[in-house]
Amino acid sequence: MQKRTIVTMPGDGIGKVVLSETIRVLEAVGFEADYVHADIGWDFWCQEGNPLPQRTIDLIEKHRVGLFGAITSKPNNEAQEELASHLQNQGLTYFSPIVKLRQHFDLDICIRPCKSFTGNPLNFIRRTADGGIEEPPVNAVVFRQNTEGLYAGVEWTNPPRELRDELEKHARMAFFKEVPSEDLALSTRVFSREACRRIVKQAFLYAKKHGHKSVTICEKPNVLRETSGMLEEEAAKIAKDFPEIALYSNNIDAQMMWLTKNPEDTEVIVAGNMFGDIISDGFAGLVGGLGFACSANIGDDCAVFEPTHGSAPKYEAYSTSIVNPIAMVMSAKMMLDYLDELPKAQRIENAIAKTIAACEVQTYDMKKMRGREDVVEKGAASTKQMVDAIIANL
Amino acid sequence: MQKRTIVTMPGDGIGKVVLSETIRVLEAVGFEADYVHADIGWDFWCQEGNPLPQRTIDLIEKHRVGLFGAITSKPNNEAQEELASHLQNQGLTYFSPIVKLRQHFDLDICIRPCKSFTGNPLNFIRRTADGGIEEPPVNAVVFRQNTEGLYAGVEWTNPPRELRDELEKHARMAFFKEVPSEDLALSTRVFSREACRRIVKQAFLYAKKHGHKSVTICEKPNVLRETSGMLEEEAAKIAKDFPEIALYSNNIDAQMMWLTKNPEDTEVIVAGNMFGDIISDGFAGLVGGLGFACSANIGDDCAVFEPTHGSAPKYEAYSTSIVNPIAMVMSAKMMLDYLDELPKAQRIENAIAKTIAACEVQTYDMKKMRGREDVVEKGAASTKQMVDAIIANL
Ligand SMILES: CC(C)[C@H](C(=O)O)[C@@H](O)C(=O)O
Ligand SMILES: CC(C)[C@H](C(=O)O)[C@@H](O)C(=O)O
Repeated sequence: MQKRTIVTMPGDGIGKVVLSETIRVLEAVGFEADYVHADIGWDFWCQEGNPLPQRTIDLIEKHRVGLFGAITSKPNNEAQEELASHLQNQGLTYFSPIVKLRQHFDLDICIRPCKSFTGNPLNFIRRTADGGIEEPPVNAVVFRQNTEGLYAGVEWTNPPRELRDELEKHARMAFFKEVPSEDLALSTRVFSREACRRIVKQAFLYAKKHGHKSVTICEKPNVLRETSGMLEEEAAKIAKDFPEIALYSNNIDAQMMWLTKNPEDTEVIVAGNMFGDIISDGFAGLVGGLGFACSANIGDDCAVFEPTHGSAPKYEAYSTSIVNPIAMVMSAKMMLDYLDELPKAQRIENAIAKTIAACEVQTYDMKKMRGREDVVEKGAASTKQMVDAIIANL
Repeated sequence: MQKRTIVTMPGDGIGKVVLSETIRVLEAVGFEADYVHADIGWDFWCQEGNPLPQRTIDLIEKHRVGLFGAITSKPNNEAQEELASHLQNQGLTYFSPIVKLRQHFDLDICIRPCKSFTGNPLNFIRRTADGGIEEPPVNAVVFRQNTEGLYAGVEWTNPPRELRDELEKHARMAFFKEVPSEDLALSTRVFSREACRRIVKQAFLYAKKHGHKSVTICEKPNVLRETSGMLEEEAAKIAKDFPEIALYSNNIDAQMMWLTKNPEDTEVIVAGNMFGDIISDGFAGLVGGLGFACSANIGDDCAVFEPTHGSAPKYEAYSTSIVNPIAMVMSAKMMLDYLDELPKAQRIENAIAKTIAACEVQTYDMKKMRGREDVVEKGAASTKQMVDAIIANL
């Protein structure tokens, strides 16, 4: 088999360490690849006024598979703030490079598995009817439409007169008629039928492949009749091709209430871009939070894999990195799934499961420490120690 | 003092029993009022093609304070389905009467307190660093903008050509340019500056009155620059008048991840209509869910109080009602707060707290029972028994 080239985009802050540590795992499991570095993030925004330089786009264009670390999207100190306002004065607006990547390469299928590893002290627990405690196994996978919806950038404050006129003419309700335009802000949720079909279809295919019995659409069709309505309509059509899988519909609000009731009842979830973002974070919280939240952004012939955490600038100050690398390692594991390296992917997941089940090597988040001070005393593992343990368990 | 007239809107299903049982509590606490019944809900949709008849609007118009039970918004059997499609063929579309009430009477301030009662077996629990279990006291109050946002009804499938042209001309991105109009759905999030100001101001006033130290805006300004941006902008201005209260900003996704981490860190939350709906349900889940989720919809000189649960049609079959009335009783308690009957309001809340702390009288949901069968054996209380216990503890 030809050797793959993977575009690595460490980005800012902890992105750098979790990505380089993850490559150690990929090498240890015997995945053969060349890695080519690409610039992305805050530094390039400051230096070039562009957090996603064209040369990075070109690299992904060429190699089609990327690993993304994390990015800083807000100034963290006064010097950075000054720079940001200087750039703004030049007419430059910061944009999220990961959102841009998803849209530029049409990575419209976002997959966010939220699966609890036995032994993780951060797993969700609840009371049983007889007063005991139980830890329900969570195994939800969110399929988030990744390019449209409220992320379409179709927004205005002080919308142009003609647009206002159109809105008022066609809207079912026009109670904002008396609001002066400069006091009116609009953000438009854009759904296309094709994108609805694609995300639902991938969710069903995934459910089938992994033996799940249901797919649940999490939207708000009683209020968003047109957008949520379109997604539900297409889902009903596609479900006909998968008679063995049940199609459910939960309103997003109800789903968030059930989050802490019966999270084990939910299997594959489909939602629009914003609701998918919210739900996946909700479920991720049940299985350990930021240190465990992995994701895949997949298009027709291109994919980028990323932990969903940020760059956590406060941890940069530490000489030895203490952050949990599992979200990044699991994202790389999803890359192996995508590249059809299934046995290697499975070995990585098993090694993580084994490491966590042993309850010996735990990063500071798993020890519920909020600062650096306690880490050494209470025996929390560093990023590198966690990766060593995973490699030892491969 | 003049005797109040309260408009009671039991609506459908369990709405009827929780409302009548709640009035027993109001009477027992010595609240003097006349109650006037108003028609609302599914029956009137079926009978008149209008779930919110004009006579109900007139009654609220006159008396300005209402108690709302619950409504059914979907057909529950074949006969109802047939009727619904018959009405639709006549060109009638079902609309949510509670959403309509909020908008018609400009009840733009929605308050949803999510406070845990000690002794409630449904309270959220988590592991401590040393392997123990703790139950963090949750006391979050969501201030949800209640009339605008994605509830504005500004929606289209197959948007008119002129509107599309405007969107494409003015939008920051126009990647949906190639989508045929009939395959395009749009739902518009509408924020007005005045509504932003009003909700933020009420949140700060509430925080001050109740001794909270912070107000947190839960939006997504990194993506929804215009709408979330406007809310944050106004919040920053209003915060200046409350120097003793901190203003925080959490992205809605992050907030949902933290929901099961440190829910006790969040005090007063402000969000748009849809995000407020989602967050309040998330927090409600931590303090017992549907049976405990109360709310107030408040305008300038008019208010409607409602539990946020639905009509739960499956429980209609039981001869003795088994549903938890606390969400409705707590909503009535919020009505007393609104009417400045503070000591009576406090007595009701104390009586509920005492009842729950005693752990003797518990409805089926608190016993984690999913069906009627076990209720008698396991000793779950009926709706009436719970209300009797609350009255005894007044
Ligand atoms: C950084 C932010 C724009 C992004 C999103 O909202 O998609 C993040 O929350 C995520 O989930 O990947
Ligand atoms: C019934 C529904 C339209 C309503 C809403 O979304 O506002 C409900 O979820 C609520 O929270 O009161």
